[in-house]
Amino acid sequence: MLKIDSSRLLGDLRTLRSFGATGPGVVRLSLSPVDMEARRWLVERMTDAGLDASIDGVGTVLGRSRNAGPALLIGSHTDTQPTGGWLDGALGVIYGIEIARAFAECDETKHFALDVASWIDEEGTFAGFLGSRSFVANAGDASVDASIRTARSREGVLLADALKSAGLADVPRVRIDASRHKAYLEPHIEQGGRLEARGKSLGVVTTIVGIRELTLRFTGQRNHAGTTPMSIRRDAGAGLVAFIARMNDAFGQLADADTVWTVGRIELDPGSFSVVPGRAEMSLQFRDASAARLDAMERALAALIDDFNARDGVCVEIASSEPPEQPVVMDAALQAHLANAAEALAPGQWERMPSGASHDAQVIAHRVPASMLFVPSIGGVSHDFIEDTAEAHIVLGCEVAARAAADMLRAMHA
Amino acid sequence: MLKIDSSRLLGDLRTLRSFGATGPGVVRLSLSPVDMEARRWLVERMTDAGLDASIDGVGTVLGRSRNAGPALLIGSHTDTQPTGGWLDGALGVIYGIEIARAFAECDETKHFALDVASWIDEEGTFAGFLGSRSFVANAGDASVDASIRTARSREGVLLADALKSAGLADVPRVRIDASRHKAYLEPHIEQGGRLEARGKSLGVVTTIVGIRELTLRFTGQRNHAGTTPMSIRRDAGAGLVAFIARMNDAFGQLADADTVWTVGRIELDPGSFSVVPGRAEMSLQFRDASAARLDAMERALAALIDDFNARDGVCVEIASSEPPEQPVVMDAALQAHLANAAEALAPGQWERMPSGASHDAQVIAHRVPASMLFVPSIGGVSHDFIEDTAEAHIVLGCEVAARAAADMLRAMHA
Repeated sequence: MLKIDSSRLLGDLRTLRSFGATGPGVVRLSLSPVDMEARRWLVERMTDAGLDASIDGVGTVLGRSRNAGPALLIGSHTDTQPTGGWLDGALGVIYGIEIARAFAECDETKHFALDVASWIDEEGTFAGFLGSRSFVANAGDASVDASIRTARSREGVLLADALKSAGLADVPRVRIDASRHKAYLEPHIEQGGRLEARGKSLGVVTTIVGIRELTLRFTGQRNHAGTTPMSIRRDAGAGLVAFIARMNDAFGQLADADTVWTVGRIELDPGSFSVVPGRAEMSLQFRDASAARLDAMERALAALIDDFNARDGVCVEIASSEPPEQPVVMDAALQAHLANAAEALAPGQWERMPSGASHDAQVIAHRVPASMLFVPSIGGVSHDFIEDTAEAHIVLGCEVAARAAADMLRAMHA
Repeated sequence: MLKIDSSRLLGDLRTLRSFGATGPGVVRLSLSPVDMEARRWLVERMTDAGLDASIDGVGTVLGRSRNAGPALLIGSHTDTQPTGGWLDGALGVIYGIEIARAFAECDETKHFALDVASWIDEEGTFAGFLGSRSFVANAGDASVDASIRTARSREGVLLADALKSAGLADVPRVRIDASRHKAYLEPHIEQGGRLEARGKSLGVVTTIVGIRELTLRFTGQRNHAGTTPMSIRRDAGAGLVAFIARMNDAFGQLADADTVWTVGRIELDPGSFSVVPGRAEMSLQFRDASAARLDAMERALAALIDDFNARDGVCVEIASSEPPEQPVVMDAALQAHLANAAEALAPGQWERMPSGASHDAQVIAHRVPASMLFVPSIGGVSHDFIEDTAEAHIVLGCEVAARAAADMLRAMHA
């Protein structure tokens, strides 16, 4: 009988929390001394769980089952944001270790190959998703080597130097074993308030949403705020505000309940009481599970820009944009295993949902069928010291993940 | 025959421009060495014009006619903004000197008492309107003394120390002579684009507008921009944008063609692509010639705030506000003299208009009937190195001011 030991699970989560503990939160930036300490502790816990574990050349901890494949890989990350919570990433890694232990203790599952990973630098202290990118990189792909040579932290530390300081300069990087790794499961906290708002305990992720990110710049005419009548103003800030209203209408027409768009930053120039702004900038990010909808929103934005420039005294242009992140669909069969396990252990308490946040799973999914399971975040809060999840949800999530993992491996052997 | 010497007028303006010249602009901050040099030059030019001139204990230059009163006082300021233009203030002071010379050269006007002033620190390097405030201060009013003791420049220099460095520490302050000073005229550049837009050459100022200035703070809930559905967001930035739209509607209902309102600064917190803003702030300034309309706008704003807080997940409050500046009406009889002179010398090329900017005239008006005459600003630009006015407009403005000044003095003697 496959059984999670909830006190062992919670104990390991609490021990991991102690590395970098800061009040209720955790500061454990990738490759920092305390992060490396935590990684050495993870190697110990994985070894105790019967895995062959080590830290690779970028800092990823991989614990390999001694059983022959096909293998399920369970992973997430244990590095944190500058003001991180205790569960973001950590949850999925400790779930993997606990499930490996539970598998070993159960006759029916003890021959299954379950590998566990803590990918380095999901949070991008140096280069986001470094560990998962390195793991799935094809032979000819030099992008990870380029990151290692050129990426720097916000404080200006070169990734290559950080790896040297961590003692990893000459350590080989682990790569995917395509003949072995047949499925990936990343359990994670939701980091949003949707499950809580809907009174659910579990989320089976359908898609990791795609992201578009750009900066819009508005150009008008800087003027004296007292002597310039409204009728002859070309107020870049007022233009920006009017543009947002039109954009909200246009995006609202295209959106479904999960589509999100965010203006996170606005700046008016020169930014004083008595001057009509001559320039204004805003950041715009929109996310959706559908590539087609993202494209439609992009087209709507382009049409709005054209229309705005044809009509108004203020001009708008896209000042810069990030490369698009496309939506990544989770594997349907793996989703079904998660859904079955959730329904068995928590009937009616789960739902399918997109992931609005980015995860290592979207990188791994390029080479391995991938899946994600969410547990609720209290108050929807994450990337904050007060991030938390109810203990009952932490335990339930691990039980569902373990049951689904066994089903996934059974299906691989079928 | 009263006659302006246009080359003498323009010559003096150009000489004054040379004190602090910076490219096409002027940097002549109150009480700086170059400002004091310019003041000593002004004393010379006033003396040459037959006036008894000196620099007073705050830096104001006053040139007193030797003729008995009643007197007309013509004044403005010769200090500049940190990036000032050559005509802002300087125009009115040199007009005064040229008109004093023209009066002396004309049998009909040579017995009129015309005093000329360059008020210190209109631009507020230390304390805005210091010179005119000091001039009109009542015996019991200690506010100027308080400014001298406590006001500091942006660089932290105490006004008292700057006066000491300028050699003015023990010099008496000139005060209004209520039995002599019966009218005030301040010719000035418009600093806006209204006259130019309407193809006019002169503006007779009806009112110096009142100003309300405040900061609005919006409070919502900071959230992850990917994981927080639109339906449960409390986006402080989106709230701010919605509020501005409602405010534009409400103010638009109350406004006349001269009412202005400006959102010059917007800040979203924390101000990043991926975070739904939890807090947002905006500056708001509105100006109007009617105290009743300013009050109505204030009431409309309060109603909008109440309505917004009753309806939305985001709250708004007035975080801070400046003391209100009330509109100051220009003297009707003096306006009529300016209008008559303008119509005589430039028929159909003038109009009555409010001043959207603040001026020493609004301070002087508390003790002396006051008036202002505007000449157009090219492109409406002021407080900028490229500030300029067509030579023909500079000369016409002085001719109209001289004719009106003579009429004002004639009326005083009638």
